[in-house]
Amino acid sequence: MDITSLSLGEYSLVYNMLSFSIAAMLAAGVFFILARDRVSPKYRISLVISTLVVGIAAYHYFRIIGSWTGAFELSSAGTEYLSSGEPFNDAYRYVDWLLTVPLLLVELVLVLDLSRSKSSSMLTKLVIAAVFMIALGYPGELLSADSMFSERGFWGLLSTIPFVYILYILFGELGSAMEGQPERVRVLFRNIRLLLIFTWGFYPIVYMAPFFGLTGSSSLVTIQVGYTIADVLAKAGYGVMIYAIAREKSLAEGYSVEEAYA
Amino acid sequence: MDITSLSLGEYSLVYNMLSFSIAAMLAAGVFFILARDRVSPKYRISLVISTLVVGIAAYHYFRIIGSWTGAFELSSAGTEYLSSGEPFNDAYRYVDWLLTVPLLLVELVLVLDLSRSKSSSMLTKLVIAAVFMIALGYPGELLSADSMFSERGFWGLLSTIPFVYILYILFGELGSAMEGQPERVRVLFRNIRLLLIFTWGFYPIVYMAPFFGLTGSSSLVTIQVGYTIADVLAKAGYGVMIYAIAREKSLAEGYSVEEAYA
Repeated sequence: MDITSLSLGEYSLVYNMLSFSIAAMLAAGVFFILARDRVSPKYRISLVISTLVVGIAAYHYFRIIGSWTGAFELSSAGTEYLSSGEPFNDAYRYVDWLLTVPLLLVELVLVLDLSRSKSSSMLTKLVIAAVFMIALGYPGELLSADSMFSERGFWGLLSTIPFVYILYILFGELGSAMEGQPERVRVLFRNIRLLLIFTWGFYPIVYMAPFFGLTGSSSLVTIQVGYTIADVLAKAGYGVMIYAIAREKSLAEGYSVEEAYA
Repeated sequence: MDITSLSLGEYSLVYNMLSFSIAAMLAAGVFFILARDRVSPKYRISLVISTLVVGIAAYHYFRIIGSWTGAFELSSAGTEYLSSGEPFNDAYRYVDWLLTVPLLLVELVLVLDLSRSKSSSMLTKLVIAAVFMIALGYPGELLSADSMFSERGFWGLLSTIPFVYILYILFGELGSAMEGQPERVRVLFRNIRLLLIFTWGFYPIVYMAPFFGLTGSSSLVTIQVGYTIADVLAKAGYGVMIYAIAREKSLAEGYSVEEAYA
């Protein structure tokens, strides 16, 4: 990133989105903790994992906002923000994904409450694929490139293989495991899978941005805003949908929050 | 905002109001967590959401007070506060509303404990309207204008449409859903609806302030103090009223806190 200046509006937009994300992640975490008793005890583990995900994300957004304010400083005329010389550290996002992406898949499998052997085989496959997906994308992220047929493109392509494998599991094996579930749960499961594709699909688009000549300050701003929206949806929003699935299944199984205190 | 100086009193008044708001929001949050067992388990979700609302608000007030102290510095003579060059960031308020306003509507609908289909259709409508209300107001907030017939006025007008729609739902559909509720609950519901109109009604007044030539430091101070009072009432005060409704309904249904520990 060799951005030397940002307009006041560009700087603030990214800053405000980062701050928004911190608030959303922390609030979601408090919700997952306090609303735990509204789902049957066996589904609470998914809410616990949701709490970890948004907690890890909030931590990284605190770091990212710190790096953002450190990387730019108001010009003496007060009309724009100039690079302070310190690079803006975007690697926090990869560290975050390395931890949170496997967890997001784990909570989805756990909330479905499959047989133990089925769920542990599925978990192993998904977690390994998720780790490869993130780890293979990172080396390319460090390289600038202006073409798909570059070293960056090569790492991106490698990273896509586990991504496609994850989709294959979610739509194939996990999809067929949904047959026996109540109708409302099936609808929620279809929605959460769509949320996952749309939000996760945003990351490779950003990754490919340099191939289409999208560099410079407006591209940096678009990427940061886009990542942030995708993260809030893919973590806090996703967690709320996991909660909705857990709640729906709890109700279908005759669980009532009153009972929990009886 | 092109305020270049504030009197000592103006600066401190805003600072102290912001600090007051942090104290009120955090205290309210602690209350909603600790007093949860005084309402029947099914109403606790509304107190959980109240906790999120005041927590998100406290977070933003910490940021706003930080931006306030960063935007002004004491003159060397110590007689006034001068602009430090760094802009005072008021966008935190919009980010806050984007998260909290839908939540405020959600807790109101949930505490009424309507049928599932009725409450989910009402929630969808209210949440979507609330998001549009905030998102349409923001572009106008960035524009200065001295007339209602300006781009700022146009966005303000657009933002009013979902606001009116929200009022229509609260007074129409939700009002008629109150028929079957106990008398005390109906009174509380009428009061909370009035609180909502009076506090929310303050925001468009502030929005229109520039149309009446209200700019400069005294206007900045009035706006900040007004927003802060409205926020404390609309979030902490509103949450306490939600608690009162939940408590009243719990008592009417024979719930007793003693029992919860029996």
